[in-house]
Amino acid sequence: MLSEFDLIKHYFQRPGRAGRATLGIGDDCALLTPTPGMQTAISSDMLVEGRHFFAGEDPARLGHKALAVNLSDLAAMGARPVGFTLALALPAANRDWLAGFSQGLFALADAFDIELIGGDTTKGPLNICITVFGEVRPGQALRRGAAQAGDDIWISGTLGDARLALAGYRLELPQPLDAASLQAAAARMHTPSPRVALGLLLAQQGIAHAAIDISDGLVGDLGHILHASALGATLDLDALPAGPVLAAQDIALRRAYCAAGGDDYELCFTAPASARAAVLAAADSVATPVTRVGAIDAASGLRLVDAQGLPLQLKLDSFDHFTS
Amino acid sequence: MLSEFDLIKHYFQRPGRAGRATLGIGDDCALLTPTPGMQTAISSDMLVEGRHFFAGEDPARLGHKALAVNLSDLAAMGARPVGFTLALALPAANRDWLAGFSQGLFALADAFDIELIGGDTTKGPLNICITVFGEVRPGQALRRGAAQAGDDIWISGTLGDARLALAGYRLELPQPLDAASLQAAAARMHTPSPRVALGLLLAQQGIAHAAIDISDGLVGDLGHILHASALGATLDLDALPAGPVLAAQDIALRRAYCAAGGDDYELCFTAPASARAAVLAAADSVATPVTRVGAIDAASGLRLVDAQGLPLQLKLDSFDHFTS
Repeated sequence: MLSEFDLIKHYFQRPGRAGRATLGIGDDCALLTPTPGMQTAISSDMLVEGRHFFAGEDPARLGHKALAVNLSDLAAMGARPVGFTLALALPAANRDWLAGFSQGLFALADAFDIELIGGDTTKGPLNICITVFGEVRPGQALRRGAAQAGDDIWISGTLGDARLALAGYRLELPQPLDAASLQAAAARMHTPSPRVALGLLLAQQGIAHAAIDISDGLVGDLGHILHASALGATLDLDALPAGPVLAAQDIALRRAYCAAGGDDYELCFTAPASARAAVLAAADSVATPVTRVGAIDAASGLRLVDAQGLPLQLKLDSFDHFTS
Repeated sequence: MLSEFDLIKHYFQRPGRAGRATLGIGDDCALLTPTPGMQTAISSDMLVEGRHFFAGEDPARLGHKALAVNLSDLAAMGARPVGFTLALALPAANRDWLAGFSQGLFALADAFDIELIGGDTTKGPLNICITVFGEVRPGQALRRGAAQAGDDIWISGTLGDARLALAGYRLELPQPLDAASLQAAAARMHTPSPRVALGLLLAQQGIAHAAIDISDGLVGDLGHILHASALGATLDLDALPAGPVLAAQDIALRRAYCAAGGDDYELCFTAPASARAAVLAAADSVATPVTRVGAIDAASGLRLVDAQGLPLQLKLDSFDHFTS
């Protein structure tokens, strides 16, 4: 029988790898020494089996995703990741599951040079709660309320393939995806890439005004920027960069899943029109494609238009955990 | 239907109460501005229904306890609480439950002048994950590995009443408790008092060497100090300060529940014998009783003795989430 302390020691404690923590796993608290003059950015996300991922999900993918969705919040703030805590409720201490989960988790942690500094493990319905810590220089954080009228709206990467994969798994598509397409789309759902490098550059160089990461669907998440900034926007649905698999689907599906698919973990950010060249140069320097998809308006409300600028009426619901 | 955003807004967002956070609930990350020169202490605890609390537990008590167990970790580190995040999985968005939970949570938060700065809410089996942040001066944190041979071992407050209440609820006692006794003991289980003021003084004044909070039972938790410090100890079981309800029980129960009851959230700390007067003065100044219960030995192993110093053989298991 694997005890709680053995479990932590074998799967989550990496001796000599406390990273930037003065004290890591194995005390009442972890201790971080903040870089002088920097603010600490903190975000917490909880993933529940059957809600955020399928029962029986591959544990390595789950380890990746649980950390990735949190890093995506740091990216949207323009913060540099420093470390994270993990609280984990498990139905049982299954060695294969733990080995896979920790492998996926630490592979992504290593890619961003951050370390697990503490947490908790307990028995219970599978639940993964990660809290990430990052650093950002005062005044540089990309806040939701900082959009300005006339700003361009930009999207990193592509949208909608994660939602397409979900529809594929659920057999909700008019025409099923072939196996290769489903696999390609599903990779976006299972192993999102947090846009940390792009977020950092946009913040450090003062290029972007507001940013958010697209987790619940672009229209809903952009709505948070508009609400916090007390502004409106016009969004060109046909300019939205569809994922490569979704791009082969019909236009109604493309529009719907790009605009409100969710689970994209791309950045939506605003920047003044005068910064277009700087945005493209920053994106290019971190090999992250970006697409200009609309503009922030002084008039409140979100106007959806097509490639000709004509209004589109789409019934687009953002995901809500308690009403859906 | 209460949406996720309405839920956060109505029950967890307190306008103008971001406390020491530069940016609180409502952005991708919270932003904390660390006090220059201080380290950040971080702890995360996850409470699962049916595991850490009974199904149907009073939500206000649960709000208190979920934060209290985390503050207790800061106390054991000698850190001053600064803020916390809350990730919450709920089977449904029940208004009465949310009102009670947030009332209990914020009452304790206000008592320690800290604020909720961010988090996550989702649907799922009831699970409460709080991550707390505190500050401590470099070199002052009370680490588990800092005990020294010859140190006294001290306990704050009293032990065992929470475990006695659990046994009472489970009808495991040879003689049932009367209603008033059960209620008094249960108050220790439901609404523990984190020993933040005492921990702070012990750290700031450099009085204590090592500390831990007693959550899984004294013997097991003291064992973490011994393991981390590579030392042993002699513990006088009859010196352990039994809670007022447990004190009226027979000696075997007193010893067992004081030594390994769990859920006490008192501090176990070590300090040199030369600091006895300082320990007592510090404890007195924050109105927290302390009791000297043993000594740290150079020889490894934990020796349990009675009031006469004679060895006691007790089968004492510390709580483990995956083997019990």
